Amino acid sequence: MMNDLDFLKLAFKEAKKAYFEDEVPVGALIVIDGEIIAKAHNKKESLKDPTKHAEIEVIKKACKVLDRKVLDDATIYITLEPCLMCAGAILNARIKKIVYGAKAPKFGVLTSLGNVFEDFKFNHAPIVVGPLMEDEVSEIMKSFFKNKR
Amino acid sequence: MMNDLDFLKLAFKEAKKAYFEDEVPVGALIVIDGEIIAKAHNKKESLKDPTKHAEIEVIKKACKVLDRKVLDDATIYITLEPCLMCAGAILNARIKKIVYGAKAPKFGVLTSLGNVFEDFKFNHAPIVVGPLMEDEVSEIMKSFFKNKR
Repeated sequence: MMNDLDFLKLAFKEAKKAYFEDEVPVGALIVIDGEIIAKAHNKKESLKDPTKHAEIEVIKKACKVLDRKVLDDATIYITLEPCLMCAGAILNARIKKIVYGAKAPKFGVLTSLGNVFEDFKFNHAPIVVGPLMEDEVSEIMKSFFKNKR
Repeated sequence: MMNDLDFLKLAFKEAKKAYFEDEVPVGALIVIDGEIIAKAHNKKESLKDPTKHAEIEVIKKACKVLDRKVLDDATIYITLEPCLMCAGAILNARIKKIVYGAKAPKFGVLTSLGNVFEDFKFNHAPIVVGPLMEDEVSEIMKSFFKNKR
């Protein structure tokens, strides 16, 4: 049976796809009961759409596949700590658990800039696990931004 | 020349469209230099997509119309105080100014549950104006949820 790190490694494969498409390399997976429901990666640059983060895309895909707007039995695997928008999308979809790879020091809202699920009194909050892949994810992020310069 | 309240009233027209489509009645407008770039309303229910809030939709539309992913010269007019996801989308699009109609006591992150742009140290933050239409917006929200029960 696959564990959190196994699924996170598959999300990392999605991040690599983004990398080779010249997108900020972030990947995401939605899993329910050990089954992969949807995969996605960041497409913000190519589509010139600031909302096309991997997390938003994977939530949209999973809702479409399952034909429902509540994912309260799902875990989202993301290579990078989510931004404010994506933490909010995860909350709105009522996702049960977040597993993330590496911290996002400049915009992450689970630990880097604070913990939005502790600081704000929402009516529910996902379980958070991570960072579980700090080295590999930090490396691909650094490589990406180095090449951009 | 139109002022903030005039534009907000147009966003309220969008909210009414949502109301008659059996969607939570929230409307949004993106304006640059007094020109309306995009209008949208909430479509979460009909499309079973938890990310289809009015704010996300109007940002996507404006980026498409303008063919760019940064809206740092734009004002977003929204009938209701934004949720975490939408505040994050507004941040990611680098929108200059938010004007909102009424507080959202259960999920609003500009004043109701806290002020996310003050509590978190992002690298920039929009100017926030509101609530400017508390009575009309609260009334349509109450009417919507009353009919739902």
